[in-house]
Amino acid sequence: MRRIKVIFFDLDDTLVDTSKLAEVARKNAIENMIRHGMPVDFDTAYNELLELIKEYGSNFPYHFDYLLRRLDLEYNPKWVAAGVIAYHNTKFTYLREVPGARKTLLRLKKEGYMTGIITDGNPIKQWEKILRLELDDFFEHVMISDFEGVKKPHPKIFKKALKAFNVKPEEAIMVGDRLYSDIYGAKNVGMKTVWFKYGKYAELDLEYKEYADYVITELPQLLEVLERENGSDKEVHSSG
Amino acid sequence: MRRIKVIFFDLDDTLVDTSKLAEVARKNAIENMIRHGMPVDFDTAYNELLELIKEYGSNFPYHFDYLLRRLDLEYNPKWVAAGVIAYHNTKFTYLREVPGARKTLLRLKKEGYMTGIITDGNPIKQWEKILRLELDDFFEHVMISDFEGVKKPHPKIFKKALKAFNVKPEEAIMVGDRLYSDIYGAKNVGMKTVWFKYGKYAELDLEYKEYADYVITELPQLLEVLERENGSDKEVHSSG
Repeated sequence: MRRIKVIFFDLDDTLVDTSKLAEVARKNAIENMIRHGMPVDFDTAYNELLELIKEYGSNFPYHFDYLLRRLDLEYNPKWVAAGVIAYHNTKFTYLREVPGARKTLLRLKKEGYMTGIITDGNPIKQWEKILRLELDDFFEHVMISDFEGVKKPHPKIFKKALKAFNVKPEEAIMVGDRLYSDIYGAKNVGMKTVWFKYGKYAELDLEYKEYADYVITELPQLLEVLERENGSDKEVHSSG
Repeated sequence: MRRIKVIFFDLDDTLVDTSKLAEVARKNAIENMIRHGMPVDFDTAYNELLELIKEYGSNFPYHFDYLLRRLDLEYNPKWVAAGVIAYHNTKFTYLREVPGARKTLLRLKKEGYMTGIITDGNPIKQWEKILRLELDDFFEHVMISDFEGVKKPHPKIFKKALKAFNVKPEEAIMVGDRLYSDIYGAKNVGMKTVWFKYGKYAELDLEYKEYADYVITELPQLLEVLERENGSDKEVHSSG
């Protein structure tokens, strides 16, 4: 009898290569704005954009408008459109799974595991990524915090996810790149946790490192974790 | 000495095949929503969407959210995302010039005419179409009414356009598919007018038909109009 029945995944930088995509998309946007006449050098504009995104968040809808204001440039919808086009083109053509994601999911389904997503972010934008990568059929349930009205690491989002699968916390394992929202959050409700050290946020919130039962650096390593969890009666494994 | 020096174009359904594009994009959106589980038949959903767009306008950002409400369906971000993806994919891959647009513009530039755009609509969205079709280099000035703060057929938008080129009204000709906003508007400030009978709005506002100096059904016919205008001293030509 298996101990772990459900595997929950975070989405961004766990299944979808989001931060790499965002970086390329933003660089292409700046480049296209300059190509269409925005009178500023690449580094100045790109750094200003990063600063702006840090302050206003990545889902703020007026990045390029505000960029012009911050750079004391006249408002020019042509430059904004040039940014939007390059950003979207990149987003749509460069969207990639994290290496090994689909392979790992397929293997999990073959072995009879139930799988879910627990992610923060705009529900429509998150579904866009899932559908564009055609990952939707892999998951029985997708929980998006902004749709549920509660963000990770709040216990409620994890409890809702467990309830959707009708399993106890100890029957589930959470895989994610964020120590605070994914690992601390899941551990807090009693799930097992796998810290996936991947992407630009992997080194954030290291004070929550102790909440990780396992650490992996490549997604397919998850299969070994599950073998260890389900293949023996040993309760505790050290992380690392 | 030429009488006509500047040719102004409307954008949607004059240079860009907008309404055909929108129709295909909306149909694909509905189809993709249904494919991802939206429990309603195509005709019901599509007709509801058309009604909604008629009420809220084509730039309303919540078409698919409102569609679900109008159909008394639960809110499901996956369906909305499916609609958004199909809509955008279509918009980006299916965007086309009106047949002969680029050819006509190239010919006008070769003959030394100045050319401008006078269009209504969201400035960023309008620039997106212009830049995606790489039409921007053809035009000395692009006037977008929502940027200028005044809509066609208000005289101000046409006067601003004339001022940008530093020409008198009688030295300019306006080409557009809309009898009220393009033809009546331009004639009102003293420009010559060419009604381009094209697209789904061509038969609207027929009471303003008398304001059209010329009627064409294909864009390259504009070259014949200009020959007649600039090649003789005759002041008045009947429309038709």
